[in-house]
Parts: sequence; structure tokens; C-alpha cells
Amino acid sequence: MASTDRAEKDRVEVLSGIFNGFTTGAPVCMLVRNEDVDDSDYERMRYLLRPGHADYTSQVKFGDFNDWRGGGRFSGRITAAFVMAGAVAAKLLSFIDIEVVAHTVEIGGIKALPVDVTEIDEKAGKDPLQCADSEASGRMAELIAETRKDGDSLGGVIECIALNVPPGLGEPIFDNLDGDIARALLAIPAVKGVEFGAGFAVARMKGSENNDPFTVQQGKVITTTNNSGGVLGGISNGMPLVVRVAVKPTPSISREQSTVNIQKMENARLAIGGRHDACIVPRAVVAVEAMVAVTLCDFARRAGLIPGVLQ
Amino acid sequence: MASTDRAEKDRVEVLSGIFNGFTTGAPVCMLVRNEDVDDSDYERMRYLLRPGHADYTSQVKFGDFNDWRGGGRFSGRITAAFVMAGAVAAKLLSFIDIEVVAHTVEIGGIKALPVDVTEIDEKAGKDPLQCADSEASGRMAELIAETRKDGDSLGGVIECIALNVPPGLGEPIFDNLDGDIARALLAIPAVKGVEFGAGFAVARMKGSENNDPFTVQQGKVITTTNNSGGVLGGISNGMPLVVRVAVKPTPSISREQSTVNIQKMENARLAIGGRHDACIVPRAVVAVEAMVAVTLCDFARRAGLIPGVLQ
Amino acid sequence: MASTDRAEKDRVEVLSGIFNGFTTGAPVCMLVRNEDVDDSDYERMRYLLRPGHADYTSQVKFGDFNDWRGGGRFSGRITAAFVMAGAVAAKLLSFIDIEVVAHTVEIGGIKALPVDVTEIDEKAGKDPLQCADSEASGRMAELIAETRKDGDSLGGVIECIALNVPPGLGEPIFDNLDGDIARALLAIPAVKGVEFGAGFAVARMKGSENNDPFTVQQGKVITTTNNSGGVLGGISNGMPLVVRVAVKPTPSISREQSTVNIQKMENARLAIGGRHDACIVPRAVVAVEAMVAVTLCDFARRAGLIPGVLQ
Amino acid sequence: MASTDRAEKDRVEVLSGIFNGFTTGAPVCMLVRNEDVDDSDYERMRYLLRPGHADYTSQVKFGDFNDWRGGGRFSGRITAAFVMAGAVAAKLLSFIDIEVVAHTVEIGGIKALPVDVTEIDEKAGKDPLQCADSEASGRMAELIAETRKDGDSLGGVIECIALNVPPGLGEPIFDNLDGDIARALLAIPAVKGVEFGAGFAVARMKGSENNDPFTVQQGKVITTTNNSGGVLGGISNGMPLVVRVAVKPTPSISREQSTVNIQKMENARLAIGGRHDACIVPRAVVAVEAMVAVTLCDFARRAGLIPGVLQ
Repeated sequence: MASTDRAEKDRVEVLSGIFNGFTTGAPVCMLVRNEDVDDSDYERMRYLLRPGHADYTSQVKFGDFNDWRGGGRFSGRITAAFVMAGAVAAKLLSFIDIEVVAHTVEIGGIKALPVDVTEIDEKAGKDPLQCADSEASGRMAELIAETRKDGDSLGGVIECIALNVPPGLGEPIFDNLDGDIARALLAIPAVKGVEFGAGFAVARMKGSENNDPFTVQQGKVITTTNNSGGVLGGISNGMPLVVRVAVKPTPSISREQSTVNIQKMENARLAIGGRHDACIVPRAVVAVEAMVAVTLCDFARRAGLIPGVLQ
Repeated sequence: MASTDRAEKDRVEVLSGIFNGFTTGAPVCMLVRNEDVDDSDYERMRYLLRPGHADYTSQVKFGDFNDWRGGGRFSGRITAAFVMAGAVAAKLLSFIDIEVVAHTVEIGGIKALPVDVTEIDEKAGKDPLQCADSEASGRMAELIAETRKDGDSLGGVIECIALNVPPGLGEPIFDNLDGDIARALLAIPAVKGVEFGAGFAVARMKGSENNDPFTVQQGKVITTTNNSGGVLGGISNGMPLVVRVAVKPTPSISREQSTVNIQKMENARLAIGGRHDACIVPRAVVAVEAMVAVTLCDFARRAGLIPGVLQ
Repeated sequence: MASTDRAEKDRVEVLSGIFNGFTTGAPVCMLVRNEDVDDSDYERMRYLLRPGHADYTSQVKFGDFNDWRGGGRFSGRITAAFVMAGAVAAKLLSFIDIEVVAHTVEIGGIKALPVDVTEIDEKAGKDPLQCADSEASGRMAELIAETRKDGDSLGGVIECIALNVPPGLGEPIFDNLDGDIARALLAIPAVKGVEFGAGFAVARMKGSENNDPFTVQQGKVITTTNNSGGVLGGISNGMPLVVRVAVKPTPSISREQSTVNIQKMENARLAIGGRHDACIVPRAVVAVEAMVAVTLCDFARRAGLIPGVLQ
Repeated sequence: MASTDRAEKDRVEVLSGIFNGFTTGAPVCMLVRNEDVDDSDYERMRYLLRPGHADYTSQVKFGDFNDWRGGGRFSGRITAAFVMAGAVAAKLLSFIDIEVVAHTVEIGGIKALPVDVTEIDEKAGKDPLQCADSEASGRMAELIAETRKDGDSLGGVIECIALNVPPGLGEPIFDNLDGDIARALLAIPAVKGVEFGAGFAVARMKGSENNDPFTVQQGKVITTTNNSGGVLGGISNGMPLVVRVAVKPTPSISREQSTVNIQKMENARLAIGGRHDACIVPRAVVAVEAMVAVTLCDFARRAGLIPGVLQ
């Protein structure tokens, strides 16, 4: 994958739950060691709060015991764990033909043109920015290169689509399908918003435009549009599940920023060195896919669609 | 409150948990009976799926046992329960000075001008559309009136702000503050998107714009902007919590719509009679406030800020 | 039922979740109002801690806000709610032929003789003490009458058996079948111990006696004894589930007892007036049955044995 | 520790959550690899169900995917994980002076004499059977030796006492202190019963004997006896928490037993080779201690007694 400049060789070790190539029913525990920790790098900045990072909030929450080494739970590296879980979930979902695919649809204001849903996986899969519109991807790449030279960074939007989701998944009020998916997606660092189907655009639509008309097709009830994004009343309706997340620009930028030295409690200036992705959107695509897969898998299990013992 | 044409007299009965005017520590159970059920109204449309409603998904999920009477869990009326819980939560939050206020910021494409956060409660509170910008509210009201005449409906955006949230609330990864709030808000019927701080606008911002610089003010660390919306790494940072939700146009419209008669499994036409709000945004404001209050209250309890026995 | 001297007319009101005689999939909320509250009775004793009751612990936990009116959550009356839930659970379990039956096996040291499991329901059902051994029941009744005259009370043991539990229910470590059942049973006021199969007697058995030998019977694996009580490794093994609980003597006795006036923080004497059951064991039988049914129902649901939509 | 004949060298690796010698607030993940797995040993018996073990139930539950290698989740080895968690819990409880100590009180029908609670830790700590009564321990050891020669095994009873538990821990009905402790203890393989305070003996006591009289001592409310075992109404009352568990005789015995070959579905004979503890009671003592500590720690955290950031 060409989407990051940082080379991090991750080796997964399966500690439990798999025997003779199959899951056993015991919890599957997978381990990726974070080998790439250079404490000295972080130690230098220990008391300088990096704007846009969780340095301050974790310092407040955990006080003197805070693990200030940058890596860990508040880093994008945590998504390695999400992706491991997502791989298992995707495998389980494949038993009931659910397919989850995510792709970059916007970076730095450049929007990808819509692509037929059946082509996303293939097109985005080979694009360096995980974008199914190669022309837009080219312009995004240029903008990222420029922005990196400026010592700055860019945000974007990722869309995730789940196909063949059976109708009926989701438990009203306390475990809505959309609510649980949003919660999982907001656990990905840098995600600042989640929307389903027409999403925030509904604010500018009329009921007659937004309501998806029902029709019968080959003996099944479908909707002729999908503004709902496949969720009505917190329950899947059998149409493709469509969810988008807003990803903020990488907070680590080399430009000098105003901040606070929390040890001295005084204002300070900070320039973050090292190599940082000028845009983490492409790297986050697989994490978005994973979180949607994991959540759908939970609901499919609950509905008894993925039995305990698979034949 | 002038925000609905439907007169529904709701009387709350407290069944448990309150004694001599104080909560006892037992669960507080409150009951509002749904008196306004006219079965005949719904019976006529029993097999006609209302587009944009949960008629189809609940039919699939619960089959022949589905309660098709329209009211109930998939109706906006469910938010009466949210508001009851929100009232208790707001009371508990007041012990630690947290104040939660929501207001209408957009209806049918008309946006309210920003208002100082300290004035929202008062201004929106007396506005018929719960909008703090009275001029915009006037235009929204006209548009709603026109749209109603057209037999159509409008969506919008509600913003909710929580003041005096202490830094440190939120449990990384599995119980992020923003994730749990989003999940609660998506339980409100008609909400299709949730965003924090700059929200989806981050997709068009650079890191240098979006990062909130830290500074020391009166011995406290604050940020000079609040693009994060008060949450960093899933944990509150002490700045105002800012969250916005997209509310879809009321699905019940009097215009004729295409749909399916699920008994006959054939296409049909449907015009929904009765009085329906042409815009439910103003009615949803209090539900948004309630859900944010309930979630914050849970986190404040977990952090030990609201002790079991209050003095 | 002759098992209590106190006449408490309980009327159940179903508030939600049932429509046309069937559950709808929505939460079933049932309400029994506690009509028999005589505050004056309790007010007199407000500051006198009743030994063996939760007066002191609830006072410490809830302080000035404690609901000291005796009824409520720490009273045996709470089991009315358990029994309502148990009725729904029993109905659901009947779809997969699971039958749960409890009976009194010991009161005041008098033990009932073992009865064939198929006869328990009928025999215990018509016995005033819910005991399947009518001879022992007679002696128990006499002892209860004597003890009542003495102003004292008696404890006992209740056994619960669930038939036709399919093998495979229970999730190792975190949701063991026996662990979850024990937890539910200890929520019944006055229960001080829970044991499965041979229970505490295993402490005096050898492995060769306690191990249940497996054998094949009509193509199925069964055990020829049932010291395990139907649970091995936290998972049901298809044999009858057998669990027993120890029920303490009613703490409300008319004999004078030593206690503390918590307002004055000085020692005091207390004699509890009113009519109290000299032995609550027979009344608790139905609560034990309910708690086992509710827990089994949860596991059966989780295993997909009771589908969401029942045909 | 002399309590087992099996030498299993366990090395704990801390994978996360500890930095500079302190917990960071992140989950503490500790790993002990099960090095002592000899597959061939188990493979020979793969289809022969060991009586008293979870071989059959796990086979039913996980089918062809069952991990039949004996070690793992249904083995006593799982308690290594409980003990690791217990070590962290004990450390946290020490901040509020709660001390948890368990000891062997009965093996094979031989009962230890009561010992003053303050002496248990020291006396049981140096006893090879974790029994505070050295005379009884001697007789237990002889009986174990004899039983081992006979190819058989013994069960027993372990008592656990928690000192300085503050009154007020426990949430009525759904999270009773005793219910949650029982649930945790039943996760220890071989535990078949749990009782608090007087436990099953309450069945033979009168109310006047069993009720613990309250009295004032040094300005505090205490009880002069402790039949409740420190729990009233599911809430701690400030007296020592006393819980006992029944531990069944080791199911692995060298004597030949009747069983089933599940592959051929026919009756078979089985003699389990290898070295097995003739009595696992002494080994389980530390697991009992751990489970009680972990559960108390959860409740203390919930009550805000162990703050997130410890000074």
C-alpha cells in the first residue's frame, strides 16, 4: 500500500482462539508489537502539548501516570487492532455474503466522482489514495505533495458501503444499527463526523425528495433511491448501507504552532519534526471498513445469522 | 411551545425512585401514556409502507407480531422518554455546573447567524422554532408555512452545546465521549448525521487551520479556537462541547407517494392524511439536549464527579 | 396459594410490548403497584435498624435520601417483578420444551424425601409449602406453627430443576451458565447460598464417586449420574439442571432483638409487630423458578434457539 | 508453593498498561504462555470424553472446531489469568486497606478448626495445603497421599475473607455484591457451590439465631455476630465479607472409568495417565482470593473509592 511514507513492519501473532486453521469459539487474541517507538523523540516534546492531539486530555485524565510516549491508544497505530478485528469480522460476514468496502471520496476539498458500487473495491483497491476516481486521485496527490512542502496537512471524507446486508439488523432505541456504527467509527482517531445516506444534505431536502419510494422488484421490497443509506428506524432495510466519515487533517504538522508547556504552565512554540503523513485519509480507509464490518458482524451474530458452529 | 400543531397532552407519572422530593437511589421510572392513539387511522394504512418511516424494517424484523399502529418506538413520541431522562440528567449535571443547550441552526437551507453561546438559551428559548437568530427564524417560519401548503416537509440542523464540561470525561476506544454521544443522538428518529466541532468542514481545512492552539488563561489550559468541539482523543478537553445533528424532513407528507402494499406485494400510491408537522426540527431540539445531557451525566457519574449521595 | 398469611392483591398491568395477545418485539413492561404500604408502621421504626434486614446498608448507601419505608427493593415484594419476568421466560422456554420447576426440600432442618423429577411439579404444586413430600410437609407445617408462636422464624432449602435444557448453553469464563444463574438467584432477598448438582457435598466425595460416567442412550450421550447438576465447564450438558438455594429465616420476628437507633447512635431494643411469615421458603419457590427461567431464556436466545420471530 | 506436583514454570509478560512502574490508565494486558502442552498426550484421548471434564460440553458447543487439547479455557490453567488480574486488584484495594485472604477449610471431609481472622494469612500462607490449622492439614495431607495411591481424588471447601470492606458496596437487584462474587467464583473450574456467612447452615437456624444484632462500637455500627457474611440486601455492611466455595474432587483420576468414544458413539473405558493433583483445593485458594479481589475492586471503583488518578 502506497498510502503512507512511514514504513512500519507489523507482524501479527495469533495468541489464542485459532486451531488447525479455524476459530475454536475461544476469544481470538492477536498481537502486533509496536516496534517503532523512539522514546527520545517524544521525550523532547513531553511537556509541549501537540495541538489537535490527545496530549492534553490524556495528561488531565491520567495525570503523572500518563504514558506520554505518543504511540499507543491515541495514535493512529491503534487502528492496527481495529483492522485485525475487521479481518475476522469480514471472514464471518462472507458466510452470509455481506461485503464491506470503503474508499476515499474527498481530500482537501477535491471530490471524487461517484462510481458504481460494484466497481469501488477494484478501482479504489489499486489507487494509491484508495480513491475510485483516478483522475481526482491524481489531483489529490498533487495537493498532498504541495501541502507537505508547506509543512501542512489535509483532511477528507471516507465513504463505506456494505452490500447484501439483510433487512432487520438493529435493535431500536438502545442498539440502533446506525448508532452503533457511528460509535465504532468515532473510535478511529481523527474522525469528527459521521453521516448515513444523504446525511447532512437532508437539511436542504424536502420530504418528497428525501423519502425513498418503495417498489417491488423480483418479489422483494426495495427502494428506488437510497437517501436513508440502508437504515430506517435504526434497522437495516436491505438496501446498501452507506456511511461517510469526516477525517480531520493530520494534527502533526511541521509548521510552528502555538501551544503550552504544561510543566511550566506557560505559552510556547512547537514544530513537530519527523516524517508525518500530510494526509491520513487513505490510511484510515481500511480502519473504516474494519469498524463497519465488526459492528455488522455483531448484529448478524445477534440475529442468529452467523451460527456458533459454522458448517 | 409553539413548535407543533399537534396537541398532545402528556402527563408524567413517577412510578419509583423519588421520595420526599428527592431521588432515593432506586431506578427512577416515569410513565407517560400515549393517549392519542387512533388505531383506525393507522389500520387503513396497515399494509401501505410509508416511505421514510420504519414500517418496512419493523415489518421485516417483527413479522406478523409487528405493532403496526404507527405510534410507539419508531415515532417521534418515543422522545418523550428521552426528555424525561434528560430532565433528571440536567438536574444532576447542575450539581457540577454543566449546562446543556440546543438550538435550531438551519431549516430548509436557511442558516441562522452565529450567536454568542451565553445568549443561545434565552434567545432560542423564546423563539417558536427554537432558533436564536430571530430574523432567520422568521424566514424559516415562512418557508415552513409554504412547504406545508405544498404538502411537503423540511429538514434542518440542530446544534447542541454543553458548557463547563470538565476535562477528562471519556474512556478511550470503547467508550469515547463523542462516540457515545453520537450513538445516543442517532436514537432520535430522523437524525441522519452527527458532527463535532468543525465536523465535516474539517475535510476542507488544513492542519494549521484546524488544530486548536493551546494557551494559558487564568492558570488554565484552554484552546483559542474550538474546532475540536471540546473532544480530543475521545476525551473532553474542557472547552465547550459542540455537536450538530442533521434532521431529515418529516417523512409524513400529504403529497402522494409511490410505495408498496406489503400484503399484496404490489406497487401502490399513498397520501398520508392527518395533521403532520411540516418540520420536526424545532420539536427535536429538546430531545437533542436530553440525549447529550444523559450521556454527559453517565460519564460524570463514572468519573465520580456526581457522587452516589449528594449533599 | 396458602403459603402466606399476608393477603396482598396484586394486579398486573401490561404497559408495553404486547399487542393482539402476542409480544411485539418491544420491551414488555409490566406494572404491579405496591398498594399495601402503611407508612406509619414503618415510620415508628424508622431509625431502629431491623437485624437481618437491609435497613443499615441502605441507610449507609443512600444516606438522608434512603427510602426507609420497608417495602420496595429490599423487601420480598421485589420478587413480584421477578415472577412477572419469569412468566414471560417460561412461555418462551416452552417453545423449546424447557420446563423449570422448583420445590421446597428443607425447612427448619426437616428434609423432604427425594421424589421423581417428573412428579415434582404436580406434588409440590398442590402442597401448601410447595413441598413434594407431603409427609415431610406436614411436619414442616407443625414446626412453622410452633415457631410462629415462639415469635421466631425458620429457613430452608429450595431446589430448582430445569428439564430438557439442550447441551451447549453457557459461555465459558465470563458468562458461565452456573455463574449467571447463581447471580440471579442471589438477587432474591434471603438467599445465602447456591449449589449445583452434588453441591457442597462434593467436598466429601472422591473423584470416582463424583465424576458422572458418560454412556450412550438412544443415540445420545448422557451421564448415568448427575452430580454435575447439568453443568460442566460452565456449559449445559443436556442432563437436568439442578440448583439449590439456602434461604435464611425471615428476619422479621416478633421477639425482642438488640439493635441500634441510628439517629441517636445508641443501642436499643426492637420488637417487630405486624403479621410476618414465620417461614418465607414456600413463597420464595416461585421466585427461584422465575430467576432460573429468565437466565435460561437469555442463554437460549443468545444461542439462537428462540428466534426473534416465532412461528 | 508446594501445593502441586506439576512443575509449570509460568513467566508473565506485561504487554500494555504499565509505564515506569505504574499503571497508565490503559488496559493492563498480561500474557502467560502455556508452554507445557503435549498434544500427543491429549490426541490419544481425543474422542474419549473424560468424566467430570468439559470435553463433552465443549464438543457439543464448538463441534468440529473444538480445541480438544485439554489445556486452555476449561483447564485449571485458566486460573493463571484470574490470579494475574487478582494481583492488580489486590494492589488497588490496598489503597483503601481492603485485604483479601483465602484458605483451605475442608478436604475430603476433614475440617480445619476456626482460626482468628487476623492469623489466617500467616498460618495458611506457610502451610503446604493453604490451611491455617496445621494439625488438620497434616491429616489432610495423609488422606491425599492415600487417595493418590488409590488412583482417586478429593474435594474440599475454601473460605475467603475480605477485611475492611467499607459498608455500601453493591447495587441492589442487578449488581448485588454477593451475586457478582458468586458469579466470579463459579468461573473457577471445579467450583460447585458458593455460600455467604452462615450459608447453607441458615436452613437449620432460627431467625433469632441467624439475625446479627446491631450494636454501636467506637461510634460505628457493627454486628455482634456475622451470619450475614458481611452482605445485607446485596450491599456490604462493613463487617468482614465471608464466602465459601465447594471444590469438587479433581476429575482427572487414574482409575478406570466408564465413558463414551464420541467418534464411534459407543461406550468405552478410560484411564487417565500422567501426573494429576489428587486434590486441587490448595491450588484453587489463590484463584478464589483473586476472584473476590477483582470483584471488590470493581465495586470500589464504581463507588469512586479508587479514583482514576491515585496520589
